[in-house]
Amino acid sequence: MYYGVDYYPEHWPRERWDTDAQMMQQAGINLVRMGEFAWALLEPKQGHYTMEWLDEAIELLGQHGIATVLGTPTAAPPAWLCHAYPEILRVTRDGQRVTFGMRRPYCPGNDWYQQLSAKIVLAMAEHYGQNPHVIGWQIDNELGCHDSTRCYCPECQKRFQLWAKQKYKSLDALNAGWGTTVWSQIYTAWEQIPLPWSTSGASNPNLELDFWRFSSDQMIAYQTRQVEILCRQCPEKSITTNLMGFDFQDIDYFALAKGLDYVSWDNFPLLNRREPADTALSHATMRSLKDRPFWVMEQQAGPTGAQIMNDTPKPGQLRLWAYQALAHGADAMVYFRWRTCPFNTEMFWHGILDHDGVPRRRYKEIAQVGQELGRIGRHVIGGATPKAAAMILSYDSSFALELQPNAKGMSYSDLFSRFHRALHELHVPVDIVAPDADLTPYRLVVVPTLHLVREEWVANLERYVQQGGWLVIGPRSGVKDKTNCVSTETLPGLLRNLCGIEVDEYVALGEYDDNAILFESQTLGTTQADLADAVCATHVWCEILNPFAAETLARYTDSYYADKPAITLRRSDSGGGTVYVGTIGNNGLYTVLITWLVAHSRLASLLKAPDGVEITARERNGVSHLFVLNHTDQEQLVRIPYRSRDLISDRAIETWTTIEPYGVYVLVGA
Amino acid sequence: MYYGVDYYPEHWPRERWDTDAQMMQQAGINLVRMGEFAWALLEPKQGHYTMEWLDEAIELLGQHGIATVLGTPTAAPPAWLCHAYPEILRVTRDGQRVTFGMRRPYCPGNDWYQQLSAKIVLAMAEHYGQNPHVIGWQIDNELGCHDSTRCYCPECQKRFQLWAKQKYKSLDALNAGWGTTVWSQIYTAWEQIPLPWSTSGASNPNLELDFWRFSSDQMIAYQTRQVEILCRQCPEKSITTNLMGFDFQDIDYFALAKGLDYVSWDNFPLLNRREPADTALSHATMRSLKDRPFWVMEQQAGPTGAQIMNDTPKPGQLRLWAYQALAHGADAMVYFRWRTCPFNTEMFWHGILDHDGVPRRRYKEIAQVGQELGRIGRHVIGGATPKAAAMILSYDSSFALELQPNAKGMSYSDLFSRFHRALHELHVPVDIVAPDADLTPYRLVVVPTLHLVREEWVANLERYVQQGGWLVIGPRSGVKDKTNCVSTETLPGLLRNLCGIEVDEYVALGEYDDNAILFESQTLGTTQADLADAVCATHVWCEILNPFAAETLARYTDSYYADKPAITLRRSDSGGGTVYVGTIGNNGLYTVLITWLVAHSRLASLLKAPDGVEITARERNGVSHLFVLNHTDQEQLVRIPYRSRDLISDRAIETWTTIEPYGVYVLVGA
Amino acid sequence: MYYGVDYYPEHWPRERWDTDAQMMQQAGINLVRMGEFAWALLEPKQGHYTMEWLDEAIELLGQHGIATVLGTPTAAPPAWLCHAYPEILRVTRDGQRVTFGMRRPYCPGNDWYQQLSAKIVLAMAEHYGQNPHVIGWQIDNELGCHDSTRCYCPECQKRFQLWAKQKYKSLDALNAGWGTTVWSQIYTAWEQIPLPWSTSGASNPNLELDFWRFSSDQMIAYQTRQVEILCRQCPEKSITTNLMGFDFQDIDYFALAKGLDYVSWDNFPLLNRREPADTALSHATMRSLKDRPFWVMEQQAGPTGAQIMNDTPKPGQLRLWAYQALAHGADAMVYFRWRTCPFNTEMFWHGILDHDGVPRRRYKEIAQVGQELGRIGRHVIGGATPKAAAMILSYDSSFALELQPNAKGMSYSDLFSRFHRALHELHVPVDIVAPDADLTPYRLVVVPTLHLVREEWVANLERYVQQGGWLVIGPRSGVKDKTNCVSTETLPGLLRNLCGIEVDEYVALGEYDDNAILFESQTLGTTQADLADAVCATHVWCEILNPFAAETLARYTDSYYADKPAITLRRSDSGGGTVYVGTIGNNGLYTVLITWLVAHSRLASLLKAPDGVEITARERNGVSHLFVLNHTDQEQLVRIPYRSRDLISDRAIETWTTIEPYGVYVLVGA
Repeated sequence: MYYGVDYYPEHWPRERWDTDAQMMQQAGINLVRMGEFAWALLEPKQGHYTMEWLDEAIELLGQHGIATVLGTPTAAPPAWLCHAYPEILRVTRDGQRVTFGMRRPYCPGNDWYQQLSAKIVLAMAEHYGQNPHVIGWQIDNELGCHDSTRCYCPECQKRFQLWAKQKYKSLDALNAGWGTTVWSQIYTAWEQIPLPWSTSGASNPNLELDFWRFSSDQMIAYQTRQVEILCRQCPEKSITTNLMGFDFQDIDYFALAKGLDYVSWDNFPLLNRREPADTALSHATMRSLKDRPFWVMEQQAGPTGAQIMNDTPKPGQLRLWAYQALAHGADAMVYFRWRTCPFNTEMFWHGILDHDGVPRRRYKEIAQVGQELGRIGRHVIGGATPKAAAMILSYDSSFALELQPNAKGMSYSDLFSRFHRALHELHVPVDIVAPDADLTPYRLVVVPTLHLVREEWVANLERYVQQGGWLVIGPRSGVKDKTNCVSTETLPGLLRNLCGIEVDEYVALGEYDDNAILFESQTLGTTQADLADAVCATHVWCEILNPFAAETLARYTDSYYADKPAITLRRSDSGGGTVYVGTIGNNGLYTVLITWLVAHSRLASLLKAPDGVEITARERNGVSHLFVLNHTDQEQLVRIPYRSRDLISDRAIETWTTIEPYGVYVLVGA
Repeated sequence: MYYGVDYYPEHWPRERWDTDAQMMQQAGINLVRMGEFAWALLEPKQGHYTMEWLDEAIELLGQHGIATVLGTPTAAPPAWLCHAYPEILRVTRDGQRVTFGMRRPYCPGNDWYQQLSAKIVLAMAEHYGQNPHVIGWQIDNELGCHDSTRCYCPECQKRFQLWAKQKYKSLDALNAGWGTTVWSQIYTAWEQIPLPWSTSGASNPNLELDFWRFSSDQMIAYQTRQVEILCRQCPEKSITTNLMGFDFQDIDYFALAKGLDYVSWDNFPLLNRREPADTALSHATMRSLKDRPFWVMEQQAGPTGAQIMNDTPKPGQLRLWAYQALAHGADAMVYFRWRTCPFNTEMFWHGILDHDGVPRRRYKEIAQVGQELGRIGRHVIGGATPKAAAMILSYDSSFALELQPNAKGMSYSDLFSRFHRALHELHVPVDIVAPDADLTPYRLVVVPTLHLVREEWVANLERYVQQGGWLVIGPRSGVKDKTNCVSTETLPGLLRNLCGIEVDEYVALGEYDDNAILFESQTLGTTQADLADAVCATHVWCEILNPFAAETLARYTDSYYADKPAITLRRSDSGGGTVYVGTIGNNGLYTVLITWLVAHSRLASLLKAPDGVEITARERNGVSHLFVLNHTDQEQLVRIPYRSRDLISDRAIETWTTIEPYGVYVLVGA
Repeated sequence: MYYGVDYYPEHWPRERWDTDAQMMQQAGINLVRMGEFAWALLEPKQGHYTMEWLDEAIELLGQHGIATVLGTPTAAPPAWLCHAYPEILRVTRDGQRVTFGMRRPYCPGNDWYQQLSAKIVLAMAEHYGQNPHVIGWQIDNELGCHDSTRCYCPECQKRFQLWAKQKYKSLDALNAGWGTTVWSQIYTAWEQIPLPWSTSGASNPNLELDFWRFSSDQMIAYQTRQVEILCRQCPEKSITTNLMGFDFQDIDYFALAKGLDYVSWDNFPLLNRREPADTALSHATMRSLKDRPFWVMEQQAGPTGAQIMNDTPKPGQLRLWAYQALAHGADAMVYFRWRTCPFNTEMFWHGILDHDGVPRRRYKEIAQVGQELGRIGRHVIGGATPKAAAMILSYDSSFALELQPNAKGMSYSDLFSRFHRALHELHVPVDIVAPDADLTPYRLVVVPTLHLVREEWVANLERYVQQGGWLVIGPRSGVKDKTNCVSTETLPGLLRNLCGIEVDEYVALGEYDDNAILFESQTLGTTQADLADAVCATHVWCEILNPFAAETLARYTDSYYADKPAITLRRSDSGGGTVYVGTIGNNGLYTVLITWLVAHSRLASLLKAPDGVEITARERNGVSHLFVLNHTDQEQLVRIPYRSRDLISDRAIETWTTIEPYGVYVLVGA
């Protein structure tokens, strides 16, 4: 199993490299990622390549049993390049051209920058294509980071006009799709089409959604150009790029992942004090993009920050996060970064070692994990997450809701996270799939919202339910068509039949008001006494449902629509059904609902566990590895209802067993 | 009585139009406004006009008994126009030229845009001048909306220099008026005069106030050019434009209204959760601009919003707002909009019908109102609001206080609203008049502040009090002269004699502190026990008054100026008097003060009523119609001290009568 | 003693001048500052000088015994100048060129502006060089105010490149110093070096710190050019400029002060509701810059503000502030301003007189002070503050921490203020000195943080402690080297030996968390029972210390580093020692620590006094004047443990004596 660090030999004197390599080896490190910001050192002047220093680093590390993933260095064009060709620099939404000084300053659609990128990538591919220590490539770095997906330069305007022409063929079709009869926006020539600059005021959301799609496409095309060179030059080396988890939604990651051999991503749990459930959601999303194990290419190793530092990982947390990644399908993990850089913007973004290079507790903890994974990793990696529940992720819906949140407090990520946490707390394995994915493997499919909907997606969902599947659909689904127009059919538009409801009216509660719902105990079934008669507060949004072919699961308690249906169920003949949730609730609402659905869809929780203890499974060659992860700073008591053994300690585990703060078990049946 | 909707046939297929027309007719709709954003469809390329579609819509609606008000479409120049002539686009305060994509992108002073506007207006006027279904015109749309009054383009700079030259004649006079001896700002050539761009830092408020006046003048001149064409071409058709109520104060509405046959305005009570009293204030302002009935040209019909939706009107509220408008002098009301548009920026700005065109509760409620108004409207419209109290609105003072609020928390609108609410709660009819208006008809005149003052205004007020009128003047009055310099006389400057006081000192409490006042029970008179010894908190601002020729009505209770006068009264020989209020108080202060003044000025409340029940009267041919409007969501009990009949239900009303939530009575004596 | 006002005769009619002069004289005013914004009146067109009006004002005032300090008027270039030469205008960080309309619009590095400045300064120097009433010069006005220190124009970019070339000699050295191996920022030509425009995103803090140093240097060079002209033309007249106290840290004031004869500064205690301790800190800083008495060139005289007014000084406060300035070393004070200007941006920035020119309570209070100082001033001025404690102010550390605060809530000024308040509350006289200052005179030296450190500074501190001094060093010291790189030695880097500790780990608490420390009673010594076992909350930042050659003074109470050292002491053989404080505490922490240190360093408090009563001493010719300043609005009881006399009232003072609200005593031994 690869266990690595992101390493920047170019930041340190040559005489330190040997010490670093030895310390890495001692910590069980067997992989480094290098080179992804080193363009200026690889091509110090245009067309003049100097790769000897990198050759030497690769060789030295190789001698210590450490393989290399090489980054193509295009995320940071050198000073000489930006000075010579300022036209390759991106333009922001307010019309200002970015100046040199940070990463990712380039316009991804700029043809000359694409050519310059191709040249350095080709040079590296030729140079390292046969190097035995180099096992693969990372393209660029965090494509889209620092709001770099969308460029508003005049050339992007022309490319967008061309993209729109290719999509709509005629101006009539475009004008229809964008609703340009409003406010005299009818375009009578392709050249008239603007970008959604901030100086336009509130933009046309139909146009802007297409601009976001264009921008996503353009970034992927930028990646593709590098993929093609690398595939041609060194077909046997794997290709990835480092993504940014579930939270980053500027690029359609399903489309971006297609060109990669495997997905990798950058995981910084403390950067925004992310909940463990939300880290789990990102792991699941990254795994699901290609439905295969992924890498963590940058794993948090210390406090992060540029001007301001964030939290320091507490003793045990680095180890816990390593196992959480492994539990969710990581086949390798690479810490960012080996040693904290003493200069420039990220001087407070800490690596395993502090600036002084002295090994301290973080090094020791990571070395412990390295030793453990050296023993047990091979039993786990390659293993798959059991197929149980799926959640549908639609970048189109995310785009549409970010452009127009509908109500103060509504966001795509928040809706997603609310449903996911309920599944997470019940320890139900979750895949994150596209709306057109094969849903057959799943007993339960959750659609937090399908705000923008296409006919083929609806057909896919209908097929799933007809075959006995259980489906949950959240509020504001079916509202938008593929050009981001509101449906002129009664809502939820194309989803009406599937759900058996119509939306009579909706109310944006915004930040001011709330309401509540009361679950119908009779409908839910009397066997689950704790769920019956549950009253759950609702916020932000309420739809008043007319269940023309559905049962009512919950009703509002308040305002002029008290007693009106809020959550409904249409059962299918094949034993499944579709639940429509017309509101946004507190956590309790999702717990009640998902608990009930898990039971009805005959899903089983992997295990019961106290709050804050995560349970995840990974199966390989018929052996299930159950990960028990204590995210709390307290000892917890867990009941394991079968005989099992902890793979890490190689100890038998009792039925009632304690788990230490931030502790981990990897259980196999005994 | 006209009862209408804003209709956009161009957004919908031709085959739907007939359904729409029928549904309108069934709801009692007899008027539509159309065309005000349809330039691109009326002139799809320069000089080529296509009005047949609009002819057809007008004719079809006419066949259903529905008349048309046509909007001139200049608020939304077409894409081809903005692409061909980018120089007509406005420049914002930070120097950026607006790009195409929203409404109102134009510089109102741009000569070429004025010519282009004139051409389309002329073409429409020629085409529709004789159309019997077209009863009038709306010029442009919401002049000044989206911060479009002030343009900072180089041509506006030149026009401002010219405007300043015409005003001041000499640079010496200008330099004196603007206080340019400060910081070496003396202008030695007209071309040196800048605009108050944000890049200038904190601007010279003397210059900036003149720039605001220039901008208001320039927008009115833009309107005038259209008025002249329309008057010439179709003299028998009425002309209006849709204003934005009391809250919008970027343009001098008294001046703008002069060129119109009647005022209309756009009323969205839930957009910012406006208090019913504040909607009443806007109605009163709009009525008073020409002292005659007005129209509501856009009346809220559903939730509003672009990215974010606001509140949904509750059952009964649409009807309530219709009667509130009628009560305050509306002779027609037009709902915005017929059907919710499924695309572009305002796709979440709801009309009477939802996107699916299905009639639901909002349609039914509006149809009910249509039916009611069809019966009773003719008894009410044309009627006048009784002359009782007036409030003086000075756009110069508003400009000056927006540029320099004096203290954190002070604003012109807030000061106005505080005084107005007290009058509103006492059910005193209020006109909103200019400082030079004839005040003879009123028993009480309230000046929330006359921050900027002119000699002729003071003379007007003095005349009023000498004739027995009662006048209240709020804090920070008399501070500024006509060029926005602070008076070098002791404050309140020109108002000293009128008020009989001098301001010894003032204290900006800002957001940190407060103080309180104690009313002098003896001065107020012992008969009103509930007002005596009232202590009211004061905020934001305290003036320490020296009443050299006035009585003290209230004194401060705290700080080093405890016991100093805060509110004073100078009685006139003719039985009236002037109250000066040197501070800003909680609601109680205004209630005490206005209650006392209403008694002293021998004004009578129309009726007593519980909190949240509004009482307003409209008189026609000697018959008074008393509107009882319940703005609460609770049933209320009202006492009607005389025999009366509800015009809507044609029922006799008992002395003690209940009024349902959001309910309405229109009472006439029985 | 000079007691003055800032006077603008050019704002007022000539006929008022005599009244002003008489009223000044009556109030004890014997100095005015004039002319510093009058360029447009002194040179109304280029090369044409009109100084007669100023001659007349100087002469008239001189006849009333009032001397003049003349300002060079370069802070406000005239309209004609900015219109003719727009290239002299500054460019902001976001790349926008400032437009005409406010003060300080110029680029201080612009050569043509420097020449234009030199011409007017020379003209004034020639004209007034022999005028007997003109006693000195103020250069420009508030250099750096309104963010005017740093200009981002293309010419400044070139000058910065040149400055960097002169500093680093070679690109290799520059690249090493700036850590440009990160993100391919290696500069291969000087012309590639950018400025830290906002459009660069998060900048390289190494580059940006140098840009701040360059900007400070450039502003000082601008000043120097004027100093040279004035010295040459009128060598016998004193030269100052008005600084902005401790709070302003964009310019290295130690360097700036070198060129001045004396320091003056502008003191507005209520502008941001400054604590009296913080005003004392500014006075001390200004005095210490040249270690000699200073002037207050603008002393608050009324409420301040442009659009919004701030607090009004309460009765007694103006007098109190006058004595506070005198107490801390002011030899003159000049009120801003004589009379409130009725126009332009500062029309609400109040002077002694209101707009109407009527003398009221502020005039009377200032006249009282004038009368008192006329009697007692000569006994005090020229006197020195006793040398007791020093605090080290490092502009480099301030720059570095402003660029990267390290943790949310950390700031250089805040750290400084926390330590200073403890000294202030113990009434210990404090000097504010540079890191390379001679520390011999002090018993105690406090370094709130030496975030950026140089070898020679460390040597200076080590020498001090070796000679028996007591030193306190705050957190995050020794982190940065002179090019703003983090030390690659274990922290506190160069300060390790001095402190006898290493930092094992650090934790940014940020705004979320806190911790606490427990002082070790045994280490502190049992004699001070009230300090023993003190628990003090800590915030923002915690360092876990390894005291390899130090005692532990306090330990953390919480989190995984509970019981780890937080504050340590390394005693020196010579009886002194170094305390290192690894965290940021509540006020109590500094009180405990400084109380203990004051005792150990054998410093004596001047006096004990209730909270809010300040005690400061000034010594002259062997006589100590003890200032007792009551900053509270309550009467306070003070114990004077020796026989004394109040210089102001010429009364004997009893042992237990009361002091009125905002009251003052100036005590001398009796």
